[in-house]
Amino acid sequence: MMSNMLLINGRLATMETGSDPYGLIEDGAVALRDGRIVWCGARQDLPSGFDGFERHDLEGRLATPALVDCHTHIVFGGNRAREFEQRLNGASYEEIARAGGGIVSTVAATRAADEATLLADALTRVDALIAEGVATIEIKSGYGLDIENELKMLRVARHIGKERPIRVKTSYLAAHAVPPEYEGRDDTYLEEVVLPGLEAAHSERLVDAVDGFCEGIAFSPEQIEKVFRKATGLGLPVKLHAEQLSNLGGAALAARYDGLSADHLEYLDVEGVAAMERAGMVAVLLPGAFYTLRESQMPPVELLRAHGVPLAVATDCNPGSSPLASVLLAMNMAATLFRMTPEETLAGTTRNAARALGLDDAGVIRAGMRADLAVWDVAHPAELTYRIGFNALHKRIFAGAF
Amino acid sequence: MMSNMLLINGRLATMETGSDPYGLIEDGAVALRDGRIVWCGARQDLPSGFDGFERHDLEGRLATPALVDCHTHIVFGGNRAREFEQRLNGASYEEIARAGGGIVSTVAATRAADEATLLADALTRVDALIAEGVATIEIKSGYGLDIENELKMLRVARHIGKERPIRVKTSYLAAHAVPPEYEGRDDTYLEEVVLPGLEAAHSERLVDAVDGFCEGIAFSPEQIEKVFRKATGLGLPVKLHAEQLSNLGGAALAARYDGLSADHLEYLDVEGVAAMERAGMVAVLLPGAFYTLRESQMPPVELLRAHGVPLAVATDCNPGSSPLASVLLAMNMAATLFRMTPEETLAGTTRNAARALGLDDAGVIRAGMRADLAVWDVAHPAELTYRIGFNALHKRIFAGAF
Ligand SMILES: [Zn+2]
Ligand SMILES: [Zn+2]
Repeated sequence: MMSNMLLINGRLATMETGSDPYGLIEDGAVALRDGRIVWCGARQDLPSGFDGFERHDLEGRLATPALVDCHTHIVFGGNRAREFEQRLNGASYEEIARAGGGIVSTVAATRAADEATLLADALTRVDALIAEGVATIEIKSGYGLDIENELKMLRVARHIGKERPIRVKTSYLAAHAVPPEYEGRDDTYLEEVVLPGLEAAHSERLVDAVDGFCEGIAFSPEQIEKVFRKATGLGLPVKLHAEQLSNLGGAALAARYDGLSADHLEYLDVEGVAAMERAGMVAVLLPGAFYTLRESQMPPVELLRAHGVPLAVATDCNPGSSPLASVLLAMNMAATLFRMTPEETLAGTTRNAARALGLDDAGVIRAGMRADLAVWDVAHPAELTYRIGFNALHKRIFAGAF
Repeated sequence: MMSNMLLINGRLATMETGSDPYGLIEDGAVALRDGRIVWCGARQDLPSGFDGFERHDLEGRLATPALVDCHTHIVFGGNRAREFEQRLNGASYEEIARAGGGIVSTVAATRAADEATLLADALTRVDALIAEGVATIEIKSGYGLDIENELKMLRVARHIGKERPIRVKTSYLAAHAVPPEYEGRDDTYLEEVVLPGLEAAHSERLVDAVDGFCEGIAFSPEQIEKVFRKATGLGLPVKLHAEQLSNLGGAALAARYDGLSADHLEYLDVEGVAAMERAGMVAVLLPGAFYTLRESQMPPVELLRAHGVPLAVATDCNPGSSPLASVLLAMNMAATLFRMTPEETLAGTTRNAARALGLDDAGVIRAGMRADLAVWDVAHPAELTYRIGFNALHKRIFAGAF
């Protein structure tokens, strides 16, 4: 149902900056029309002109912007539960790799699956996010690792945005790993797959941004730069998995290409932070991978704060290092493990997550924005981050529809 | 609906020991009558006599025993989200305590709340557990800390078992903390509240077991022993919060009183493990508290395994150190943080959790047991532990009722 709607009697965490914490409005009202927010403020300030709007009493509940999961690999074949089990039973990484485990197993399963299977599998996870009030999801390719299968993944991602009332932003991530058939021939893989695949995917309008994995075990800054040059030539924004396991200067590289975000960032140094600040980039922190990999090096949250780099938080939902399908849990982990405040974690899954995707119409409750809202059975927004494994969502309103 | 029922075409993780991992039966059948399992085995071995039973095709899904959460403080007033936020904004423990935070704030909120409010609040969390297939929940008192309010908490706990189709086992935990009005007079609190309160609660049949918190910041082994003597005199089994922050020999003390379990156990040593083994106790591990408190000392899982002490896993759901309302997430945390195997974590929330509560009719799919089952949309039981923040429950069958 989409109609003119007036939400009253709610506490609004608008997530506007520069005002009260959380941009909080105690007794607020929000008017929605044609899928957009047309007015937001204190109820006592509500102008006339909304008499014909259908009224919905929030009964004192908290409304926030709908959540945004700005970094996922949620489309993939199979799962890695058996490998998880083998490792806990004492198998070494080498033994698992010899048995065909690791990302190679996900690539094989993703290549083997048809689009309908990939879609059905991904929707189980997407629906878990939607149940938490997530209205916008970023989805990466990167388990096809050949042109045909990278495009297949992106088509499935686009399809998700048609099957469900959410917005999907895609990222082309063929520069995720070198597939077995190109082992030891990274540069050939780049030339033969990553770069022409990007052109092919772009010509089908499957790409909203271009991503890469810059790491000793993946691609060098020089290799990533080739991908970024191609992206820039096609007019596509870039982002990067950077400084997760070591510091290769990936964030600074992405900054030179006006990147939207750099993601992970455990090993980011002050030069990288300064580069991100100058470029206006978002730092996307992924505590699910930090938790699963039992990392000890924390991202430089204090330094990012001091430089005013916006912090986002995402699930990194993927079958290996973060089989996490809960943005709320990512928020709790960001607080517990990275010492982000509850206000920062909520900004990180609303205002700053939208910015990490280049969206200027989501993540804040404000006139002109999309009417993407979440209504929660909590008294205070800090509860969303404080609770663990508990979904307090009362109602979601996506694009103005209940 | 309760009737004679035959479940077919399922993979059964029976959790029987001494057979295949997870006691797995590939193409299994389970017959249920009058709330009990009356037959379980491979479908090809199904005897005649079940023709009149209503058939339910599990379509290849996995069935496990319904889950058991064997350690919770799920009844409490208020929440501690603001304190969580203050701490992340840099407030010290002292500042928070001076502002009335910590357990004292939960005690005040619990005392101030009436039974209906406590019940309604607790049910939101209990329902989250039920949605994960939890059919049995242990609930402790311990935020009343006077006779009237300890009994009030236990009455609410009993009420939960009537409001929902689950079994509730209560533990009397007045020896949880010393309330403000007895500050510095621990022994007086024991004599005036804990011991007479236990008699009063027992006479109202509100107590299934007696618990305590044995720690430098709580009660000494000598004080706990007074409580245990009283419990034993009343014919009630005991258990103990032991060795969480230091090693006071609490597990060995509980073993001398034939305890059901010792819980937390991060600082347990080999003598404590051996005492638990001799007494046939269960080690209840609580990774939610370990995670929230950012502990680094892991419980001695390897040693407990070597001594054959059964391992259970629980949420420890409480407003301070573990605001966790997901047994599935506790299982993932036990694997990720404590290196338990997926089979151990599932045994820890079924077979061994039932044993920690003194139940011999739950936690295993076997003829004679209660018909408490969970049916999951997963191919392999390891997936239940591997996934993070994802509930794959397809259907629950509690006491034979769909
Ligand atoms: Zn990623
Ligand atoms: Zn406890």
